[in-house]
Amino acid sequence: MTTVETRAVVDLLGVLAYAELTAFDRLAEDARMAPTPAGHAALARMAAAEIGHHDRLVRRLGELGADPAWAMAPFVPALDGFHASTRPRTWLEGLVKAYVGDGLAADFHREIAGFLPEPDRSLILEVLADTGHADFAVREVRAAIAAEPALAGRLALWGRRLVGEAISQSQAVIADREQLARLITTGTGDVAGIGRLIDRITAAHTERMRTLGLNP
Amino acid sequence: MTTVETRAVVDLLGVLAYAELTAFDRLAEDARMAPTPAGHAALARMAAAEIGHHDRLVRRLGELGADPAWAMAPFVPALDGFHASTRPRTWLEGLVKAYVGDGLAADFHREIAGFLPEPDRSLILEVLADTGHADFAVREVRAAIAAEPALAGRLALWGRRLVGEAISQSQAVIADREQLARLITTGTGDVAGIGRLIDRITAAHTERMRTLGLNP
Repeated sequence: MTTVETRAVVDLLGVLAYAELTAFDRLAEDARMAPTPAGHAALARMAAAEIGHHDRLVRRLGELGADPAWAMAPFVPALDGFHASTRPRTWLEGLVKAYVGDGLAADFHREIAGFLPEPDRSLILEVLADTGHADFAVREVRAAIAAEPALAGRLALWGRRLVGEAISQSQAVIADREQLARLITTGTGDVAGIGRLIDRITAAHTERMRTLGLNP
Repeated sequence: MTTVETRAVVDLLGVLAYAELTAFDRLAEDARMAPTPAGHAALARMAAAEIGHHDRLVRRLGELGADPAWAMAPFVPALDGFHASTRPRTWLEGLVKAYVGDGLAADFHREIAGFLPEPDRSLILEVLADTGHADFAVREVRAAIAAEPALAGRLALWGRRLVGEAISQSQAVIADREQLARLITTGTGDVAGIGRLIDRITAAHTERMRTLGLNP
């Protein structure tokens, strides 16, 4: 890898490592809104999976000679900002955030990982692979909407707000990290390539909203 | 197993399952006081281990035909009470609680598990086996005391408060659960046996305080 490439890889591993750490915090916090111990444990299990991923990313940062805390630091404001502005007020909002928000972030990071050399491409794809816990969120949200159809409108609004906040924070991060921005523009090839990337991410998001029974 | 034995086993699995679930919550919460992302991740990792244990206990409750939520319910007031009255105010108090509190609870449950038939005895001993994460707490607390010896007195007081609260909540639980109380009195044989059990638990606690560099 060239120095420029290494810097972009460290950026991507850093943002992901911090994303997993904050995802742990938020899922653990939201778990406490669960109406049953089974729901509580299900969200706690999602949180536990995140910390396993975090550990693998931190290990790889160490192999690359990067200080993990230093690599994560530039992304703290954007990720903390995202979570502060999308704090779920209910158990169902927490589940929608866990499913829609994490899905969106995973898609975005997966696209960028495609531009990286090995072994980092595979590491990131593995870390982002769905751990199957998402099924739980889908089941719960669908059941709640079936019991109270009026919920669908409010939760759809919430889903759209999550995307809006995610996009605005991602733009801020990319504008601020030159190597990361270059990786994306080089990887996608041109403006049309960036457009297609955004289309793919949007399509997957729409699909997830539909899976939950929400109007995208 | 006789019905009476099954009830005691369900009680013990229930109290442990809820203990692991609340331990997850508290460790996840305390992790956020960490002064470094490495410390944050270390406590999050301890929390993640608890949820894995919780899942195994819940599965076994299901095998025994017990409703896990129902089996945990009687122990919610005592365990929530313990955590509410021992909420760490600092990162170091959180670490002492993670090490001393969890160690004490594990010793107590391990003693009682010894009175159970298989496979529950082995399941509980496995679930309680130290996952090695405790080393982190020991290293951090010792380093902090080395840097600021005045901390030792305050943290020792905190350790003693944890034991006091743990004992008073355990007594309340045992007084309330006839089958569990009978399991302990039958298992230990007589009053002298109970005395020896308490001696063993106290000795292990003293040892843990010393390991942290604290006066027991």
